[in-house]
This record gives sequence, C-alpha cells and structure tokens, in this order.
Amino acid sequence: MFQIASQAHIGVFASQPGLIARYGADYPDVPYLIKLNSKTGLIKTAQAEPNSRQWLELEQAVEFRKSSGLNIVGVGYTVYLGSEYEADMLREAAQLVFQAHRHGLVSVLWMYPRGKAILDEKDPHLIAGAAGVAAALGSDFAKVNYPQKTGHNSAEIFKEAVSAAGRTKVVCAGGESTDARLFLERLHDQIHISGASGNATGRNIHQRPLAEAVRLCNAIYAITVENANVDAALKIYQGD
Amino acid sequence: MFQIASQAHIGVFASQPGLIARYGADYPDVPYLIKLNSKTGLIKTAQAEPNSRQWLELEQAVEFRKSSGLNIVGVGYTVYLGSEYEADMLREAAQLVFQAHRHGLVSVLWMYPRGKAILDEKDPHLIAGAAGVAAALGSDFAKVNYPQKTGHNSAEIFKEAVSAAGRTKVVCAGGESTDARLFLERLHDQIHISGASGNATGRNIHQRPLAEAVRLCNAIYAITVENANVDAALKIYQGD
Amino acid sequence: MFQIASQAHIGVFASQPGLIARYGADYPDVPYLIKLNSKTGLIKTAQAEPNSRQWLELEQAVEFRKSSGLNIVGVGYTVYLGSEYEADMLREAAQLVFQAHRHGLVSVLWMYPRGKAILDEKDPHLIAGAAGVAAALGSDFAKVNYPQKTGHNSAEIFKEAVSAAGRTKVVCAGGESTDARLFLERLHDQIHISGASGNATGRNIHQRPLAEAVRLCNAIYAITVENANVDAALKIYQGD
Amino acid sequence: MFQIASQAHIGVFASQPGLIARYGADYPDVPYLIKLNSKTGLIKTAQAEPNSRQWLELEQAVEFRKSSGLNIVGVGYTVYLGSEYEADMLREAAQLVFQAHRHGLVSVLWMYPRGKAILDEKDPHLIAGAAGVAAALGSDFAKVNYPQKTGHNSAEIFKEAVSAAGRTKVVCAGGESTDARLFLERLHDQIHISGASGNATGRNIHQRPLAEAVRLCNAIYAITVENANVDAALKIYQGD
Amino acid sequence: MFQIASQAHIGVFASQPGLIARYGADYPDVPYLIKLNSKTGLIKTAQAEPNSRQWLELEQAVEFRKSSGLNIVGVGYTVYLGSEYEADMLREAAQLVFQAHRHGLVSVLWMYPRGKAILDEKDPHLIAGAAGVAAALGSDFAKVNYPQKTGHNSAEIFKEAVSAAGRTKVVCAGGESTDARLFLERLHDQIHISGASGNATGRNIHQRPLAEAVRLCNAIYAITVENANVDAALKIYQGD
Repeated sequence: MFQIASQAHIGVFASQPGLIARYGADYPDVPYLIKLNSKTGLIKTAQAEPNSRQWLELEQAVEFRKSSGLNIVGVGYTVYLGSEYEADMLREAAQLVFQAHRHGLVSVLWMYPRGKAILDEKDPHLIAGAAGVAAALGSDFAKVNYPQKTGHNSAEIFKEAVSAAGRTKVVCAGGESTDARLFLERLHDQIHISGASGNATGRNIHQRPLAEAVRLCNAIYAITVENANVDAALKIYQGD
Repeated sequence: MFQIASQAHIGVFASQPGLIARYGADYPDVPYLIKLNSKTGLIKTAQAEPNSRQWLELEQAVEFRKSSGLNIVGVGYTVYLGSEYEADMLREAAQLVFQAHRHGLVSVLWMYPRGKAILDEKDPHLIAGAAGVAAALGSDFAKVNYPQKTGHNSAEIFKEAVSAAGRTKVVCAGGESTDARLFLERLHDQIHISGASGNATGRNIHQRPLAEAVRLCNAIYAITVENANVDAALKIYQGD
Repeated sequence: MFQIASQAHIGVFASQPGLIARYGADYPDVPYLIKLNSKTGLIKTAQAEPNSRQWLELEQAVEFRKSSGLNIVGVGYTVYLGSEYEADMLREAAQLVFQAHRHGLVSVLWMYPRGKAILDEKDPHLIAGAAGVAAALGSDFAKVNYPQKTGHNSAEIFKEAVSAAGRTKVVCAGGESTDARLFLERLHDQIHISGASGNATGRNIHQRPLAEAVRLCNAIYAITVENANVDAALKIYQGD
Repeated sequence: MFQIASQAHIGVFASQPGLIARYGADYPDVPYLIKLNSKTGLIKTAQAEPNSRQWLELEQAVEFRKSSGLNIVGVGYTVYLGSEYEADMLREAAQLVFQAHRHGLVSVLWMYPRGKAILDEKDPHLIAGAAGVAAALGSDFAKVNYPQKTGHNSAEIFKEAVSAAGRTKVVCAGGESTDARLFLERLHDQIHISGASGNATGRNIHQRPLAEAVRLCNAIYAITVENANVDAALKIYQGD
Repeated sequence: MFQIASQAHIGVFASQPGLIARYGADYPDVPYLIKLNSKTGLIKTAQAEPNSRQWLELEQAVEFRKSSGLNIVGVGYTVYLGSEYEADMLREAAQLVFQAHRHGLVSVLWMYPRGKAILDEKDPHLIAGAAGVAAALGSDFAKVNYPQKTGHNSAEIFKEAVSAAGRTKVVCAGGESTDARLFLERLHDQIHISGASGNATGRNIHQRPLAEAVRLCNAIYAITVENANVDAALKIYQGD
C-alpha cells in the first residue's frame, strides 16, 4: 500500500531516512540515497491533488551522513507535476538540488505528472516534458515512468525524454512486478535503444523472494554496468 | 470529549506539556513522555480532514526537561495518515524523530489512518501500512489501533503490523473502556501472539476509580514486564 | 461591533497592544495584560470558520514591557476550539504559554468553542472540555463562557469546568450587559458555588457611564478580593 | 486600474517602494511614506476575498531610507477588515506598527472593511469600528473612507470614527475624482466638523492635469495646515 | 509543453538555474539572467488559478554567480496579476527586486495578467496596468505581452504600457512562432513606434533549426542594438 524504497540506479539503495537510519549500519558497504519526501497512496487523485513535503532538511541529511558514517551519496525527491501543489514541490526540489550539489551529493528527482490535469500519465510527450523540468531544476538524475502509447514502441518513444533531459541522466521506474525476461528485455531496450542511464527498480525486487531478488539485482547489474545481453542476464537471474 | 493523556508503554506516562508542567513535580519518579501535538475531537471527519500541529518545538521540550528537572524520556506525535494534511504531519513527525534522537529522547508516533479516504480504520493491512510508515520515519515506537476484521482473530492479523514495523516497536492503543479480563486477555495476546511490545492505555485507566485504575496499571505491568499470565494479572487487578 | 478590551481578572486590565501603548502611561499604576490576538466580528460562522492570529511575538511584548516601563504582568490569547483553524491557534497558544512562563508573565487563554462544529456554545460539557484544553496547554488562567442549560443552575453545572481545569484557574466571561444585581449575584455564585477564581468583565463595564463603571469595578473587587456578599457589593455600586 | 500612490496626509507623499526608489532622488525635499502592501483591483469581491501581503520587511524599508538618503518618515499598510484573510493582515499591520515605532517611523493604516461579509462599506458604524481597530493596533494614523448614509450629514456621522480612533489620528480617503469646490468643502468639513486630521488624496490629484493638480495640492494645504476657508482655498486652486 | 528559456533582452540569455548550471560553462561569454520562478502549463486556468513560487533565494543566485564564475547579470520572476495567488507573487517579486539591486543585479519581471478574473490577456489597458505594477515594484525591466485589440494598431496601443512603466523599461514577449518578416517588423515597430526597449524571444528562436535561429538572433540584434531597418535585418536572417 505504501510506496517503499526503490533503487535509483544500479549501485545505490534509495529509501526513506528512517529505514536507512535503522538498517544502514548492517550493510555498511551499500551506497545510500535518502529519499527526502514521501507520501502514502491513501488519497486518490479524485479526492485531492497529490502533495508531498520534504521530511528532513538537506543539512540534516548531511548531519546524518556524518553522524552515521554511512556511505550516503545522494538525495531524492518526488515532484508531482500538474498537481495544484506543483509550485511548492518545484521550490523544494530546486532547493534540494542546489543544496545537494553544495555538499557533494547526487540529486535524483522522481518526476511524475499526476493530478486532475493529467489525463494520461504514460504519454511520451508528457514524460519528456517532466524530464525537461528535471533538467531545468539542474538535477543529476530524473526518474520517470516508461511511456506507453498504442501502436508505438515504448523504447522508441522514450528517446524523447532522454533527449529532453539533456545532461540530466534518465532512469526509468521499474513499474509493476513483471516476468523476469520481459523486465530484463525492457531494461536492455531502455539503455540501448532509448539511451537511459539505468533503472530504478522497486516492486520487481521487493515482491520476489530474497534469493530470487538478489539474483535479479545481479542480472540488472550485468545489463546496466557490465553491458551484458538479455540472455546472459537471464541466466544470472535463473541462477545458472 | 477531549483526548487526554494516555500511557505510551509501561513505565512511561504520556501527556500534553501543560499537564506535565503543572503536575510533574508532584510525581518526580515517573518517566514522562511529552505528547507534542493534540487536537480536540470537535470536528468530525465529515466536516473537515483531521489536522494536528506540533505545539512546542523539540528544542523547547529539551529546555523544559532541563528547567523542570523531570525525568522526560521521550516525545510523541500523532500522524493522521490519509488526511489531506498528511504531508504537513509527516514532515513534523520526521523532524520530531530526527531531533528527538539527536537529544537522546525516545520517539513514539501515534499512527492513525483517518479522513474521507479511510473507509475502515481497523483494516489490518491499513494498520500494517501505518506501522510501516512509522518505520520509514525512523520512530522507536508506533502506536496503532488493534485491527478488527470479521471472521479473523485480531491477535493473528495484528502480526502483519508488527512485521511491517520492523525494528520499530509496536504498541497497541487501549481503545474504549472494557471489561478488565477482556482487556488483559487482549493485552496478553498482543504481546504473546502478535509480537507487540506493550500497550498504550488511556480510557481504560482514566475512566476507572483511582484505586481500581492503579490496580489495573499493576496488572498491565505484570503482563508486559513480568511476563505474568492473564489469571495472575487479573488477581492483581481484583486486589487479591 | 469590535471586540474591545476586557478585564481578565480583578487587578489586571487586558487590552490590545496598541491601546496599552497609547494610554498605558497615563495610568502607570494599573497592571496590564496584553491580548496578543484579536479579530473583528465581521465574519459570521456561517461564512467562514473563526480565525485569529497572534499580532506580536512574545519577545516583542517583553521588549515593550521594558521600553514602556509599564507594569505588564501577563499576556492573553483566544483559541476557537472546534474551528477548522484550531490546529494553528492551539500551536500559537502553546507557544504563548511556554514563552510567557519563561519570561515570568502570567498567561490567560480565552477558550471559546466556535465554528460550524459547535451547536451550543453554552453547553456545560463543552465548556468544561475547553477549560481542560487550557490545562493541557499549561495556562495559568482559562477564560470561558458561563454555561447555560435548560433546567439546570449555571453555577452548579459550571463546577465541571473548574474541575476539568485542575490547577489552571477559571475566570468567567462577563457576557452581555446586565442588570447590576444579577451581574453581582452571578459573580458571587461563580466564585462561591462554582469555584471560579474571578471574572473577566468587558461590556458590563464599557457600556456603562464612567462613574457607574468605576463603582461596578469596585463592587466586583469587593466580591472577588474582599469576600463581600452581594448586598454589600450592590451598595458600593449604588454609591451608598 | 491599479491603485497608485496617494498622499497620506499633507506634507507626505505615499507610494509603493519601487516608485520612491526610482523617482525619489529627483524630489529630495519631499517627505515620503512607503506603502508596504498593495494589490491590483483585478479580482472582484464576488470572486475572492481581498488579500494583500507586505512587499518589503520593515527592516528593508529602514535600510532603504539609509541607502537612499531620502526623507522617509513613515510606512503604510492596508487592512481589509472582514476579509477572510483579515487575520493575516492584522498580524502584518501589528508588526508594521510595532517595528515602525522602534525605528522612529510614523505608521498609517488604510482600514477598509471589504469582502463578502461587508454589505455597506460606507456605513458610519463600520468605519468607526475600522478606525477603532487601527487604535487597537497602535497606529499613528488611520485612513478610512468617508461615511455615507441616506438622510445623514457625512461630516456629522464621521465624528463617530474620529472618536473611536482615540489618539490615533484619522485621515479621510479622497475618493473618486470630484468637482474641486465640493472636494474642498468636504475636506473643510472633515477637519472642522468631524475632527479629522487631514486627507489622503489620490485620484483627485492624479486625474487632473499637472498644473491644476499642483494648485489643488496647494488648496488642500491651505485648508489643512493654514486653516484657510473654502473660498480662499478655491481661489488658490483657480490660480487667482 | 513546458515554458523554456527565453531571452529577456538582447545580450542576455534567460533560463532556469539548472540549465545555466549545466550548460553555462560551455558558453562563458554569454551574459545570463536566472529565471527564479517557473511553472508547467499543465494546469489550465479553468481548473486552478496560476501560481509560481521562487525556486532559489536571491542569496543562492549570488552564491552561484560566485561559485560558477559565470557572467550572471540579472534575475527574473513571473507575476500572474489577477491570480488569487497574486499577493504571494507580488511579495516575492518585491523581495527579488529589492535584493537584486542590493547585489548589483538587474531585475526583469514577467508581468502576465492571468486567471479567472482576466477576460482578455491582450487588452492594452490591462497590459499597461501590468507594466505600471512592475514600476511600483521598482523593477528595471518589465516583460509584457504585446496588446491586441480589434481595429487598433498594436504598436500604437502598446505606447500606453511603455508610458505606464515610466523608468522601468518594457520588453515585449515574442509570442508564438511567426514568419520572420512579420516578427522583425513587429519588433521594429515595438521599438520605434511604441518605445519598447527590446524583445524577449523564446519560441521564435527555439522552434527554428539552430543555424536559422542564430541568424534570427543576429537580425534581432541588428534592429535592437544597431538600429537596422527591417529589410537589413531580414537579409541577415536570410543569410545574405
């Protein structure tokens, strides 16, 4: 029900500050990204516009990095573009990017068009626009949804977002839990056709048994970092 | 009519800052937990979404601990998840946890799904989600309602919340005033079946005569801290 | 039309900061209480929920006390419980009490249930609850309305509020302008039957000619401070 | 269309900070009053409640006075009493008065009842109440509308506002552009019958040709400061 | 879909802070103007009033100027006059102008009447009023829309805005992509008939191929800075 931690790009584990504070010391080698705003999914768009506020100040994240000794490399924030609260979230996102860079932290913005004004969250132009806003905000990474349009190849129409993002790297949301081969093919396409820089996978990992989830992470790593093809990655996933 | 002080877990007396300020010196051995937000129950959900703001800054609670000399061990805050004010309360709760830990104070979050979006406040998945949010916020304790679902054993379905909370300890709201045996059986089940870490009892104590309330506290203590069974605890309550 | 200064308890003159600033020096012996929020009565509850924000910071009141040399002994604030702005006013009231005590000032909270959610502002349980909130906020005094309930004696049902306020002293709002004997009898009952600590009189003084108003103040003083009975006080009022 | 600078009282030119910053140095002998909030008139009351926020902090006005070397003697602010934003404007107005006096600046409050709750902005009791609120805020001057009531003489019914303002001096808004004799007669009556301390004229000056506007200013000066009668002032206006 | 960088006046490239941060170092000779608020166009006026908040503080822009070594000469901000959020944007704009001047930065205000209250955004009086508000805010430049009114010459009716702006220089928004001759004629008229100080061109440049866009920039430069006539400028655009 609640949005839980998701990986922003291979090699970084993104989560809310409380989870990193309580479990991070058990996995001291993991590079962490602190997600600085989050909301429940309890209120539907039909009731109220999406709204999410920053939980901790950037300075507090830096203080936590120092006091915990954890390898915290970045911060994340979700902007619901098209929400009537957009102005407040754009302001917080701009501040987060500016202050993160001052402290040597990587910024990742979850750019999700959502609200009454948004008729199709998977529209490729809309997603490209969202990636462009992340660039205007100066973010290192933009996490966006993978576009879908009847009669079009998602990997092709996703190029528009990568182009609109310019020097801001685009990573794709993992989406709902999927068959592993489909998932790895899609990831391969996102990187090699669309030009994405990686993938931010949540439910496809969390909703698998632990051993299987670890093998899927390794398969994702193979495609993204080691330039493996889908068959090779699938073997990793299958434990061959 | 108004929500009054309730005990967050055995051994701590939780109340609003004004009551602790005026009565605390008379009971200097009691460990106190300052509840830092509260609201009246005058506005029903049908009229407006639940909203509660922090009364004192964490720094002021720390200053009060010092100036009063009282044994203040923690702070509490209620988050109404699913309220249209959720974003503001999540922000305040995250700040409270972060700052409390900086000052060596325990944090307890009252996690109550409430508002137009919430159809069943006793839904076990919803309560588990609420406990999970407390974990994401990094709280030491989450106080949640005891789940109820037709055809299910509450103690069993409550396990989901304890599991979702991870290293955040779960304490159960005491609920409406109840027969003492039922109350103690429920508490025993919460601890020994569900895995809860205690109980936060309010009305079941406040709405009893003083001597009886004291005996009930002692009975609760016996179950929670001394591992007594229900019969033994009931004898304590009955003054045997 | 506008809510004007009222006396919080015998011996203190409560008013908005501007009036004390402009007239206080002419009456240097008067102990003053600065009312730190106020609103007009122009907007009716049917149009919008009651809302009143603090005009000056507590630190500014303290600075004014120093720069003016006036005998400023306390500060006051109105909370409209049950208003949809309740959360903001509770926060300001808690801050006011906390900071006032830090500076050795007495706090008086006007506790008025008001708004769409309030069907009967004179309900004795509601008024008792309001007094209890003032206690939870740690205020020295709570000013509340005198309860009215068909078939009940107001002085009797007012005891509930005095009891709910605990160590917070209760003073009763003077209400609309009234026959002097009725007014003094009511005051005597509030103190000697209900257990109130005084009376905060506004319109019953302001809406009388000056000489008569002064005599009424003296009569109130006789009952409240000198323990006079109603007949003796009435003679003072009548100038005998 | 937009509310432009108006003179708060004879001898002071009131305007928005930008205009004083750009033109003030050309007229270094003029005493200036900085109007610190302003709004357009684009939104009608039927659409939304009137709302105006302070543009610059008082400290910034003081800094500007120092850096510009201009003879800035005061600051102004408009409060829309009866607006649903009243609480915010009362707070800003109280702060402005408090801080202005700390820095030796005169305060002028434009006190305009406006909003859905206000049925008749020219009601004499309402205007008197508005003047009284300015006194409660401690302002040096209150600028109010000239009351109008069928069957009553405006100069007579305006006395109530001057009385309600107490030691706060009342100046009257100039209103819509008018025949010069009528304007000067009204001004004379406001001062000599009602007891006003001057006049704040805007459109009656701005909407005249420059030379005529200057002569009208001189005529106003003659009545207000030199105690001239209407005929003498009219001759000044006519350039005789 | 999203509003992207536009040139505020010849010789300055205006864009959001993120884009200047990521690309500015590649074009170190360009003078930059940081646009400090921006919004998407996803929410239409029929759904909600236009609202845009400042992304970075002025102090952060100054800090960025220093740390980047870029030639940042000014800051920009959009005010949606007539929006129900007007009061908040006027406040931010006034602060931006005040603080920009303190740091030697030029200020440009995009003054756009927009919202339910605005029936005709191209009305010449409305645009003149908007230019006048920029003057009241003390801005160096006001960017406004080019007025349109049936039966009137836009260049003539635009004079009113230039006049209303006084010492605040007026630059005209470039508007939708247009035939180059029409565009250059309009620009020439704005400068030589209306008295505008330049042009802020966005889509007419961004929506052309790069080489053509560069030639159009040069043509604009010829008219605006070198006083060329339209034919001469058109030849530059055509690459002759």
